[in-house]
Amino acid sequence: MQTFALGIDIGGTNTVFGIVNRRGEILAQDVMPTTGYATVAAYIEALSARLLAMMEGVGRNTIIGAGVGAPNGNYYTGEVTNAVNLPWEGSIPLARLLSEALGLKTTITNDANAAAIGEMMYGAAKGMKDFVMVTLGTGLGSGFVANGQLIYGHDGFAGELGHLIAVRDGRDCACGRKGCLETYASATGIVRTAEEWLETRHDHSALRGLEKITAKAITEAAREGDGLALELFEYTGKILGQCLADIVTITSPEAIILFGGLARAGNLLLEPTKRHMEQAMLGIYKNKVALLPSTLPDSDAAILGASALAW
Amino acid sequence: MQTFALGIDIGGTNTVFGIVNRRGEILAQDVMPTTGYATVAAYIEALSARLLAMMEGVGRNTIIGAGVGAPNGNYYTGEVTNAVNLPWEGSIPLARLLSEALGLKTTITNDANAAAIGEMMYGAAKGMKDFVMVTLGTGLGSGFVANGQLIYGHDGFAGELGHLIAVRDGRDCACGRKGCLETYASATGIVRTAEEWLETRHDHSALRGLEKITAKAITEAAREGDGLALELFEYTGKILGQCLADIVTITSPEAIILFGGLARAGNLLLEPTKRHMEQAMLGIYKNKVALLPSTLPDSDAAILGASALAW
Repeated sequence: MQTFALGIDIGGTNTVFGIVNRRGEILAQDVMPTTGYATVAAYIEALSARLLAMMEGVGRNTIIGAGVGAPNGNYYTGEVTNAVNLPWEGSIPLARLLSEALGLKTTITNDANAAAIGEMMYGAAKGMKDFVMVTLGTGLGSGFVANGQLIYGHDGFAGELGHLIAVRDGRDCACGRKGCLETYASATGIVRTAEEWLETRHDHSALRGLEKITAKAITEAAREGDGLALELFEYTGKILGQCLADIVTITSPEAIILFGGLARAGNLLLEPTKRHMEQAMLGIYKNKVALLPSTLPDSDAAILGASALAW
Repeated sequence: MQTFALGIDIGGTNTVFGIVNRRGEILAQDVMPTTGYATVAAYIEALSARLLAMMEGVGRNTIIGAGVGAPNGNYYTGEVTNAVNLPWEGSIPLARLLSEALGLKTTITNDANAAAIGEMMYGAAKGMKDFVMVTLGTGLGSGFVANGQLIYGHDGFAGELGHLIAVRDGRDCACGRKGCLETYASATGIVRTAEEWLETRHDHSALRGLEKITAKAITEAAREGDGLALELFEYTGKILGQCLADIVTITSPEAIILFGGLARAGNLLLEPTKRHMEQAMLGIYKNKVALLPSTLPDSDAAILGASALAW
């Protein structure tokens, strides 16, 4: 009998979910809003109803478990705690609630860790035992794999690369500190840099005409050769590359894999990041660590990564 | 039949070695110079003659293997590569050479990793699955343990915390880069700070009268309340504490354990390091990570750590 796992990715806007087989093929998938429910219980009820209906399609007894990726999801406690991008405050025992509603063993971790597992099982990190996953979205998330295992740390909160101090006493971060990497290297970070530069500099740029600066708009401008947009990627790549060089000094990975919105800029970001990473790197690591784009399609990666937790 | 392991710690000046039982009791130990041999072969011959004689005391067939801690020792290749503090250039297949000479399975790793294993088996990290070992000697070494396993990384060179960039474009480091943590936080680092300050500042200090500034002299002056010496520990602790906060962000350990020459300054270093670490730390980790001194006696730790590799 073929067996399947549920993969559920809870994002700030949408929750995507699907049924995945052992080879990483998605047999069914769907999406529903994460917000708009009066209580967590109402959200769980709506989500589990959709999941149970989907499970009927392959037979409920073929599903071996559910994996959930969510911001601040804690593998040890099964809780989501103080996730600023989710509508719930405090600690939510999400794994237990879903497990009870679905009648399935349910495992949770944060979204970047889920992406790392997905990449290790089905993507660019297939067969690797030591790598770092970096997700460049609204924030910067990360998952560290060493000796073939995800590093959760003592309390399940390891891998907060986005909050490495990139610039001592630098930009204000939502975490209350200053200079965190994600305030520079993320979709939000590159937009902050653009807004700062557009105020203080006076060179021509296609970005000046825009009502709202987005990472996508910066990417498009850079693709058309806009000087300021290209410099934005150079600067973002420099700060990211220098921090990645420090990460290599700690974990000595085989590869670093970039994923998420800003990573979609491709070589615009990869090239300066790689160059500055190599330049900043300790001699023994130079030219040994691959910097790779994720090979999982964006729409699938979240579901695949979450489902991989269940196996 | 009780079994034993050999523990060998190769330092820049001396090689210390001993026979250790499973409970971490050292039954015999001795020391010989590391330098003064014309070739590596001559060194291996001298060392193995001493070890074989020592092994006779407990019976050769009770020895299950040998563990070696050495600067730049590589667990995967068994080699010592470009160790600036050792008299040999290039890559030396030390594990193979010793294994042949002793007729024992021989495992090698760098000295900080060996210290981490020793601390996990017999010292302050007993029972811990996630911790960071920091050795503050001439340089700064580190060993990372996650999920109960040492992190060697893809190529065996993980854990070079001493070469984290603490101050971007800071002090020249022997590695060819600038601002590495060990140029500030190590016995050598605090002396560099003292020498800089004594040149540029004019306040009174007992250190001014000394022919040669050493970490030990700074420690003694601080113990007697010398203002400049106390400030030196405050400054060193600040830079170390800030970097440790970044390390916590990556690995989320249960504890960080300090060992080695400079760590012997005790609370003079621990207190400011802990204070600055907590101040710089991301909220979710605050007051969760213990900063502990090693509980292994200096003279034993090197042998214990190396021997622990063999089990």
